[in-house]
Amino acid sequence: MNTNGLVGVYGLGRFGLFWSGMLAKRFPVIAASRTRKESLPATVTYGSFDDLFEADTIFLCVAISVLPNVLDRMAPHLSKRHTVIDTCSVKLYPVEQMLKRLPESCSLVATHPMFGPDSARERADLLPIITWPVRCSDETYSAWVDHFRSMRLRIIQKSPDDHDREAAYTQGVTHYVGRLLAQLELRPSEMATLGYQRLLQVMEQTCNDPVQLFQDLQRYNPYTREMRRRLAEARRTTEAMLPDENGSA
Amino acid sequence: MNTNGLVGVYGLGRFGLFWSGMLAKRFPVIAASRTRKESLPATVTYGSFDDLFEADTIFLCVAISVLPNVLDRMAPHLSKRHTVIDTCSVKLYPVEQMLKRLPESCSLVATHPMFGPDSARERADLLPIITWPVRCSDETYSAWVDHFRSMRLRIIQKSPDDHDREAAYTQGVTHYVGRLLAQLELRPSEMATLGYQRLLQVMEQTCNDPVQLFQDLQRYNPYTREMRRRLAEARRTTEAMLPDENGSA
Repeated sequence: MNTNGLVGVYGLGRFGLFWSGMLAKRFPVIAASRTRKESLPATVTYGSFDDLFEADTIFLCVAISVLPNVLDRMAPHLSKRHTVIDTCSVKLYPVEQMLKRLPESCSLVATHPMFGPDSARERADLLPIITWPVRCSDETYSAWVDHFRSMRLRIIQKSPDDHDREAAYTQGVTHYVGRLLAQLELRPSEMATLGYQRLLQVMEQTCNDPVQLFQDLQRYNPYTREMRRRLAEARRTTEAMLPDENGSA
Repeated sequence: MNTNGLVGVYGLGRFGLFWSGMLAKRFPVIAASRTRKESLPATVTYGSFDDLFEADTIFLCVAISVLPNVLDRMAPHLSKRHTVIDTCSVKLYPVEQMLKRLPESCSLVATHPMFGPDSARERADLLPIITWPVRCSDETYSAWVDHFRSMRLRIIQKSPDDHDREAAYTQGVTHYVGRLLAQLELRPSEMATLGYQRLLQVMEQTCNDPVQLFQDLQRYNPYTREMRRRLAEARRTTEAMLPDENGSA
């Protein structure tokens, strides 16, 4: 069965809604989620879980932590004509889970769109997306790389291991610092320096994402633990740069 | 003796050089420093320490920690016609030191220009400067507020205590986070999110300032210690948001 380029999206959280809207500019999109959404992008059709498999390609936009359960529910519906593409913010773990839980017959592509609704609005350059052909024909992979290019995304091909290693010190650090600053209840200030304004932006943007994303980034990327250990060490080193507090000049 | 608006600047570090250049667009400027500088803004005259006192107004652009020593050396040269204006990044401590060490006859104004050469280049809006009339006539204070306005600065009048309280959570946090990130040796990345790019900018900008400034901001602002205590607590709270590390889904 050929479905004329129908694309499925499972998971309609903040990112899933945004991504289905982006896809719908180029493809007929059918979306499904655990709980029905009140409002969808106008061009996206809402369907049942079973309806999803009418699409040849199904994007997964669910929280990393629920992925195994979702994959197990999908597995019986998948066949040779299907391509499953995850969009998780870590890569080793979802790739391992897809390989383990989905039938060998279907194709697998891993992606990490490095943006969300906030940064997509603000960012002037092409939005970056990490891609990796996990298990698929060159044709299938190239076709999606071309689709992403035509969606004005910048393709960065990177292995899941390279991705996670680098993401621990880019995305992992950013979300960690954002959450840290939120605890301090930082507020806009008329005496804000440019640097302070940037910290506020980081805080607001990362805290706009669900706390689940923060937790999953730290938990399912095997390199973030080491990043956090180094950050704790950095705090001690930074404290040690300060002369005796009680001295006076 | 009236010196036709001659303005003195003592201290030609990164900020002093920049500030003397800004002043020189409107005033004849004489600058002095502990060690002679190779290159000065073209319109700034280099002079000896003693030459400085030909100017009616003398800006102090020295590290906070050396201020007491500089003030003691200045004191014998100052008289009724002089106005001393500090530009330190904390305010309670320098104001206390100026009041204590300079003759009662001279006028005192406290300022904190909330920018440096980097942010002045990048920032599109008016650059903010905090001002406070420590001990001076309304005329002297108003004249300098007007001068700052004509230099396209945005005046924020704030008491030294209010300044330090707020600066601990704006500038203090920014420099602390910048130094913390520098320990992690963060680098530009092709997969940088917008948030990560902003953290890199904060890191680069704060670490472009001398480490002495970082230390002085933390040491001489009485409110930064509490900010750092809260940051340490924020790290513990953030860690506690993370589920058991060794669990798997």
